[in-house]
Formats: sequence, C-alpha cells, structure tokens
Amino acid sequence: MARQIITLLTDFGTRDAYVASMKGVILGINPQAVLVDLSHEIGPQDVRAGALVLAGAAPYFPPGAIHLAVVDPGVGGSRRALAARARGQFWVGPDNGLFHFALAGNPEARIVSLENPAFFLPQMSATFHGRDLFAPVAAHLSLGVDPALLGPPLTDPVLLNWSEAEYGPGAARGVVIYVDRFGNLVTNFQAVELRDWLGGRDLRLKLGGLSLRGLARTYGDGAPGEFLALVGSHGFLEVACNRESAAQRLNTGLDAVIEITKD
Amino acid sequence: MARQIITLLTDFGTRDAYVASMKGVILGINPQAVLVDLSHEIGPQDVRAGALVLAGAAPYFPPGAIHLAVVDPGVGGSRRALAARARGQFWVGPDNGLFHFALAGNPEARIVSLENPAFFLPQMSATFHGRDLFAPVAAHLSLGVDPALLGPPLTDPVLLNWSEAEYGPGAARGVVIYVDRFGNLVTNFQAVELRDWLGGRDLRLKLGGLSLRGLARTYGDGAPGEFLALVGSHGFLEVACNRESAAQRLNTGLDAVIEITKD
Amino acid sequence: MARQIITLLTDFGTRDAYVASMKGVILGINPQAVLVDLSHEIGPQDVRAGALVLAGAAPYFPPGAIHLAVVDPGVGGSRRALAARARGQFWVGPDNGLFHFALAGNPEARIVSLENPAFFLPQMSATFHGRDLFAPVAAHLSLGVDPALLGPPLTDPVLLNWSEAEYGPGAARGVVIYVDRFGNLVTNFQAVELRDWLGGRDLRLKLGGLSLRGLARTYGDGAPGEFLALVGSHGFLEVACNRESAAQRLNTGLDAVIEITKD
Repeated sequence: MARQIITLLTDFGTRDAYVASMKGVILGINPQAVLVDLSHEIGPQDVRAGALVLAGAAPYFPPGAIHLAVVDPGVGGSRRALAARARGQFWVGPDNGLFHFALAGNPEARIVSLENPAFFLPQMSATFHGRDLFAPVAAHLSLGVDPALLGPPLTDPVLLNWSEAEYGPGAARGVVIYVDRFGNLVTNFQAVELRDWLGGRDLRLKLGGLSLRGLARTYGDGAPGEFLALVGSHGFLEVACNRESAAQRLNTGLDAVIEITKD
Repeated sequence: MARQIITLLTDFGTRDAYVASMKGVILGINPQAVLVDLSHEIGPQDVRAGALVLAGAAPYFPPGAIHLAVVDPGVGGSRRALAARARGQFWVGPDNGLFHFALAGNPEARIVSLENPAFFLPQMSATFHGRDLFAPVAAHLSLGVDPALLGPPLTDPVLLNWSEAEYGPGAARGVVIYVDRFGNLVTNFQAVELRDWLGGRDLRLKLGGLSLRGLARTYGDGAPGEFLALVGSHGFLEVACNRESAAQRLNTGLDAVIEITKD
Repeated sequence: MARQIITLLTDFGTRDAYVASMKGVILGINPQAVLVDLSHEIGPQDVRAGALVLAGAAPYFPPGAIHLAVVDPGVGGSRRALAARARGQFWVGPDNGLFHFALAGNPEARIVSLENPAFFLPQMSATFHGRDLFAPVAAHLSLGVDPALLGPPLTDPVLLNWSEAEYGPGAARGVVIYVDRFGNLVTNFQAVELRDWLGGRDLRLKLGGLSLRGLARTYGDGAPGEFLALVGSHGFLEVACNRESAAQRLNTGLDAVIEITKD
C-alpha cells in the first residue's frame, strides 16, 4: 500500500512555497508516496472549477488513488474537513462541495469528519490546512490508516449548488460550466442524456448570436475558424472553434446560456 | 524495465484535467513508471515549438527513456499515430513532425504506425488521443511490450518544413526559431556549422536595426541592457540582452531574419 | 540513500526545455531520485524571492532532502558554486544569497566550493550550470557522495542584503518582502519577535493609507473585501484582504514600508 498515488489539486499556483510544502509533509510521512499534480491553477477560491477538474481526471486514476484537493475559502473558519472513500478511491479536503461529483447521490460513499489531531501536523496554522491537516491525513491514508480513526462519520457533505441541464418537450436549456485552456466552452449537457432526449434526431444549438446544426466528431472537423458542437473528452457537450478560442471569438464564458432544439 | 522514465510534452497547459488524465492512465497500466513533465506550455498547436523543446531536453535523458509528446492539431482526423525507437530512446505521439529531430535523416529509426487497439483505452474519444491512445501505448512500452505488436512499420514519417541556415560565400542567413522565457532569441545557426563557416574569423550579426560584433561567452558578459550574441545551451546561436528580454527590447520574435558576415 | 528527495527551484519557468534537461541529467545519474518541483516561477534573476520561497518550503521536507536551487544571474562569471549541509538538509546552487536562510548565522553549516569537474557533465556550457554542474552534483550527493570530494571548504558564503524589521521603543518598522499569488503582502516582521515586542498589547498597523487594529486569525475573518493583519503560514506578519488581492487593492508591493505601534 505504501507506493500509493496521491494526486494534488489546489488553487495555490506553483509560484509560491505552498504546494511544495504539502509535498514535503507527505513525503516525510510516506517516502514511497507517488505524487501527481492534478492542477494548481484552479481560479482562487473557485470551488466549482476545482470540482469539475477533479471529476474530469479522477476516473482515469487506478482504484485506491487518493485525491487531495484544497480550494478552501473557509479555511480556519467553521467549515468541516473530510476524508471519504467513494467510487473506489479516496478524497481528502475541505467539506465545501469540492467532492460533489464523487459524493452527490452516492449512498455507498463513506465519509468521516477529520477531527483527530493525532493525524495533523503538531503545529497547526489557522491559514494553511492544506499543509497542516489535509496533507498529513492523505499521507497517513496512503500508509493504510483506517479512515475510521480520523474522526466521526459525516453523513451530510456540502454539495455544489449545481444546475443540471433542463430537457423540455421542445427545447433543452443548459449553461457553460467550464472554459478550458483552448477556449472550448464545456456545457452541462451530458452526452448520454442529450442523445436520449434527441432520440435519433439531429441537434440545433443557440449560444448568443451563434447558431449551429449537428454534432461534429472532433475539433478538426470543418474549416479553421469554424464553430463546432461536439462531445468533449469529459463526456459533456462542448462548443469549440477549429484552431481558435471559442470563448474569445464569442466573447463569452461561464454561465452563458445554451438552447438546444431538435432538427 | 518497469521503473522506466516517461516524459510528457503537450500544449495542454496544466490548468485543466488533460495532463493529469494521461498520468492516471499511465500509472494504471504501469504503477512503477517515472513520470517527468517536459513541458505543457507549448503554444496551442505549435508543432515546431514542441519539436524544438523536445529536441532540447531529450538528449539529457538516459537511454531507454520514453518521450510521449502530444501537440496534435489533427486529432481525430486522418493523421497517423506513431511510436519510434531512435537515438536510443522511444518516441510516442502524432505523426506530424513533432519528432523531426529524432527521425529526420535517421535511417536507424524504427517506426510503427499505432493501429492495434488492444493497446488503447477500451473507450476511445475522437478528441483526446493523448489520454486514450498515446498514454496507454507509452505505458505498455514502459512495460517492455515489443513495438512490433503496436502496428505495422511506418517508413515515411511527416517531418517539419524546417529551414536550415544558409551559408553563402560572403554572408550567412538564418531566422529566429524559438524565443525562450527570458526573451532570448534562439536562431537556426548551429554553433558547429557556424564556426566552420567563420573559419577562425570573428562574426558580425544584423537583426533588424541591431548590429553586433563577436561572440560573448555567457549572458552576464557586458553591461546590463547590452545585447549579446552567444551560443546557447541548445548549441544554437542566440541573441540575448544582459538581464533583459531581447525579444521585448527589439520588439521581434519568431522568424525574424538574421544576417551574419565575417569580420 | 538512493531514493533521496531532490527538490528543484529555479527562475526558468516550465515552458522551455531547461528544467526537464536538469531532471534528465539527475535521473541519468540516480534513477531512484525522487524529484519534487519547489518552484520554477521565481521572477527572472530575483535571488531574494528564490531565497524566501526556498525558506518557506524546505523546513517541511524530511532530513536529508537535497535542495537544488538555480537563480543565477552570474552564471559563467566569477561567482562561486556551492554545496552545503545545513539544518539537516543539503543545498546546491550558486553562491549568491539563495541559501541565506539556511546559512546565515549558522556555524554548523558545512559548505564546499564546487570545483571538482569529475562531478559535472563532461561538456560544460558557460550559460547553463543548472544542467551541467548543479544537477549532476545534486544527483551524486543523492547517491551518498561525500561532499568533501566536491571541492574545498567555503567559509564566507554570499548572504542577502537582508533588512530585518526594526523594533524601536514606540514603533516598529518593517517592509513587504514577498507578495504571494493571492496578493497577500508578506512582511519581515517575524511573529515570534513581534509578539515579544508587543508584550501582550494589541497592534496598530499602517501601510500607506491603510490603518489596521489587531491581529486576525485567518483570511476569512471579517467581511469579504476587508483588510486584515495576520500571521501567515511562513510565520511572518502578512497584510491580506478577505477574498481579494491586498496588493492590487492597495496598489502596493515589494519594499512597501509598514509601521506598527502598540495599541
């Protein structure tokens, strides 16, 4: 169990000493831990973006992987700290919705509230629980510590105020939930649900002044500069622009509304 | 063979889930793989910059290292996917010129076209071959899989449309091929060739309005703010500015023309 | 000793081939080395920032960790190169103040001047000692090489021209020494010294037009947009702004003067 994967996701950036401090703490407790950066460029305190990036990468890690995630606007306040076993992996971080996609509607999740200081650093700051609380807990989990020793059960984890796409009889309505580095607009239409709703018909999509017909297969379909709707690698519908940034070209972004009708 | 190095070079950035997904896939197949980020900040779809950064770092890795590189504007289209053994190392990625400096003019390179889905993820997206095709292939190679099992030989790899410096009797002409983070202007004059051509004489260099005489030894030669020509760590001639960005000071960059005469 | 931690701190960024080249060199010498990025986003040639980030993270690494740090404006010139054993860890890099916080006022530090080319790369460039000199030395140290073999003792390491906070009878005066990614203004008031000086009284702080009373416990104290003085995770006094960037809101930064009086 010692050569266990621990992924790290934070909004700390990689310029300051914060992320490296966490890694030092982990390797001091479990020198065999395999550390993998998931992302440290989540927007400051953007819990929703953190949850989405985590949900995009975690399924590709093997069972037993430990996901240590710290986007923590409430650090030092009354928010709880949690560790969970869910979907065959472990999740460690603040109880603020970061783990929404692992825990929401998942009765098999086993969650504990991190309250046992025996597993924290001896000196706890009020400002940096990533280093002083979450990193040591993740490291101890990687050594095989029983989660039940970390604290009492937690049965009501905080979830995101998450808006699902709405499927009406004539039209479906969703929003942009993430803009990736290429400027692709990721929406909350899940490919599987959308296809069910379309029932074999083609799709017509409206986003601001943009109107698209049909699903492309990949970003390179169509001419450079052409807009496309396609199913992205997360399994969500995306609006993209071949070789350009759709977000910049459309001057749009998070929470932009998308309407879909059957063609 | 299991503790094999796999380097990763992409244009994905490190903000989104893309790179971490690739690492999860690799570690799921070979938990002992040693992952090293080469760069994830190649400009979007800039195959030439990817090829140059790869060529700058790869020679410093030990024999047997596997270089997984994904700058892939043609993903999901008709471009081929390849794995190669060349210069004592392995190369995995799209067949679009990314591996120019390992494969060009190298009759000893052994290349295969990746066509055997037994080595891909079971569910292949059309948009993200980095995760679904190249990462699992690199991981299988790191376990010692025979490249011949991955697909048929590929003998005509795509190469870069690469402009070499031209050496005339009275003058030599080259271009800026890369601008590094410090604003140093890396040219396509290879130090070895340039020295041969100069035949012991000194150099006079023109780049736009800038005129330089002689080669400096290092960035700190001359006063702060002074421009210098020197041989950079890649073995190419560079134009630099002591403690400043030559690119910004000269307001120039990629493809700028440089003329050299003998002094 | 082979599975030794080597941290890397540079001002090279992660876009170019520089950092990866160093890692390739290290893994070629010690394939078991555990590489941890400390930061590669130190401002170009900003030795003070490098020293501070190193000092913020190093104490969280286990004994024996090797810190390889290269912020090196004097590369190729007359500055010396050093390796040191201090505070139970190893330090490798240019002798320019980068290791101030490990070496200053530390009679137990054992320092050598790196002069034995047997531990460098066979081909040494004048421009990139990170790859050609410091990386191989760190790798050899991680294999247990005796530092005395690396070169003669060095007893007068270069230190930073570091301004300590000044504690007068009526007022104390310090400066901003670091601005982190969140825009928190880290000062040179050490929490322990400041508390001694305050002797149980409360604090009143002035920074430009900003006036604060008392110490907050964490960033979330007070309302969003409210300014706070608090002890940050490095053990220094910080001026922060709840959920915003204090640096941006106050339009201030490095070397800004802070005055503290007793309340």
